[in-house]
Amino acid sequence: MSDFTPLSEVGEFGLIKIINDKTELRNASTIKGIGDDAAIIEPQEKQLVVSSDMLLEGVHFDLTFCPLKHLGYKAVAVNVSDIAAMNATPTQITVNIALGARYTLEAVEELYEGIRLACENYNVDLVGGDTTSSRTGLVISITAIGEVAKGEAVLRSGAQVNDLVCVTGDLGAAYMGLQVLEREKQAFLADPEMQPELEDKQYIVGRQLRPEARMDVIHDLKGRGIKPTAMIDISDGLASELFHICKQSGVGATVYKDNLPADNQMLQTALEFNIDPLSCIMNGGEDYELLFTVPLTAYDELKNHPDITIIGKITDASEGVNLATKTGQAYPLKAQGWNHF
Amino acid sequence: MSDFTPLSEVGEFGLIKIINDKTELRNASTIKGIGDDAAIIEPQEKQLVVSSDMLLEGVHFDLTFCPLKHLGYKAVAVNVSDIAAMNATPTQITVNIALGARYTLEAVEELYEGIRLACENYNVDLVGGDTTSSRTGLVISITAIGEVAKGEAVLRSGAQVNDLVCVTGDLGAAYMGLQVLEREKQAFLADPEMQPELEDKQYIVGRQLRPEARMDVIHDLKGRGIKPTAMIDISDGLASELFHICKQSGVGATVYKDNLPADNQMLQTALEFNIDPLSCIMNGGEDYELLFTVPLTAYDELKNHPDITIIGKITDASEGVNLATKTGQAYPLKAQGWNHF
Repeated sequence: MSDFTPLSEVGEFGLIKIINDKTELRNASTIKGIGDDAAIIEPQEKQLVVSSDMLLEGVHFDLTFCPLKHLGYKAVAVNVSDIAAMNATPTQITVNIALGARYTLEAVEELYEGIRLACENYNVDLVGGDTTSSRTGLVISITAIGEVAKGEAVLRSGAQVNDLVCVTGDLGAAYMGLQVLEREKQAFLADPEMQPELEDKQYIVGRQLRPEARMDVIHDLKGRGIKPTAMIDISDGLASELFHICKQSGVGATVYKDNLPADNQMLQTALEFNIDPLSCIMNGGEDYELLFTVPLTAYDELKNHPDITIIGKITDASEGVNLATKTGQAYPLKAQGWNHF
Repeated sequence: MSDFTPLSEVGEFGLIKIINDKTELRNASTIKGIGDDAAIIEPQEKQLVVSSDMLLEGVHFDLTFCPLKHLGYKAVAVNVSDIAAMNATPTQITVNIALGARYTLEAVEELYEGIRLACENYNVDLVGGDTTSSRTGLVISITAIGEVAKGEAVLRSGAQVNDLVCVTGDLGAAYMGLQVLEREKQAFLADPEMQPELEDKQYIVGRQLRPEARMDVIHDLKGRGIKPTAMIDISDGLASELFHICKQSGVGATVYKDNLPADNQMLQTALEFNIDPLSCIMNGGEDYELLFTVPLTAYDELKNHPDITIIGKITDASEGVNLATKTGQAYPLKAQGWNHF
């Protein structure tokens, strides 16, 4: 007798009911959640921000090493990260999923457990979506909605010459985590008896499998009365995101190589893999940290901040986007972020 | 020399730029569209409604007979239909697409031409989304946002005993259109020289390939000062949707077989295919017409309405959901809508 329930036994409406029954609503702006043709939201005087992302099996994740619960969490976190990058607070999400025939109710519940955990951590309401079948792999498409007081949203286009360039957390770890997971997968495929060697890679593997959106920093900056002039989240890599800010703000930037925040486990693993750690930091992607600019006046507040590093400054557009070394040399940066085609 | 541009030549950011450059913004509530981490919407005093749907190649559409432009249009229309079913006006959409490697820039532009045409017809702003690659077929996930004055949203749960049950347009044609397209596809596969026979099937094929959301009826009802007590759009079939309204409103319903609106082309084609037309009407699905209930007092306004048919009445829950014939007999209805698993 199997302990697993095929989805065909539950049916589409049955599944929606199971998902809905476990869903709590936390935000006053959520007037009506799952269960009608659309959700109803009442933002009062606020502006809303809306962002949407789609993750496909075989393109964005590999279920051989990505547990469904982590995947559900990550799918929400990457969308919340976009809301954070607008200086907004996430309030609602809709989740569309397409599932292959091999999925059981238990697998879907695992996925939604991760989604619900992220909703709890980020104080977000799951208000709707669509559940359908897929002929191939799993597809998750999430739309996140957030609220922000009028005039408080931060775009990519507001950076000013002489602003400080700041970044949260450390960079490159999610990329190195993926390299480790890929290596262990190959080793496992070659010898299924082999146990994965992940003991000293916990941090970087965690960065890949279960990233967090930096809402903590958004709240912290607000508490300090600091409003970034421009902001973006790092999904494609620092270099690529810095180019977005510079292009949309009509400015240049210089970042200092020695200031770039990196974790030791990432650095050691990069050495082990013969990968240039600078390349992981600049182009690794999937860190979901925030890259932002602030006026020079914020220097004293931020210079010793445990979660924020000042990595450079905004310059005139004519100076371009550069990486400066200790010796004072500056090299023009190239954006090598992900291109999905 | 090929006239087609591979997507790899344009790149992801290039494609986003091409899509963005052709995008017009029409709604005052759209503060910021494509081009940042999230769009910004300012709904003023209004409530927002949010709905999201995902369409997958091989599950929801077949590109052998569905032109990309129509597909783009339909993907928007089915989401707008959900907004209409809330008695709201659509204002913004986000579009996530995943594309296989074989797609050219020209194919993507076809798809977006349909999306833009629908945006124009429904007065909706395309404000964001995600473009990524797919290892298999095309995936389109759309989230639609609409606005509605506080207190004006119509849920599925408001039907009252003695209310009239109404439906817009005619039913069953989209389903019969699909049967015709499937037949012509099989004939074409058997003999590629064969020309498809669609001349006398234009209406039903059009209903399948390019449905319209009934925003016209929403505006019309508003103009007449009629607010439905409950409403839902018909995506899965009349029977299934009627069950949703009855269950969520805690009522029963009787619909009259002879009142059900059907198009002649649908009826004739059903005969030709040896399919019971009543089954097409009740369970065909994909009509994207509106099913709604109104107080008895709206009878005079609606009895001769060209786009609305009164098909029955709401009864006490204890009477169940029934189909009544001319002779006065009532048969309990079964919901046989689509189950995606």
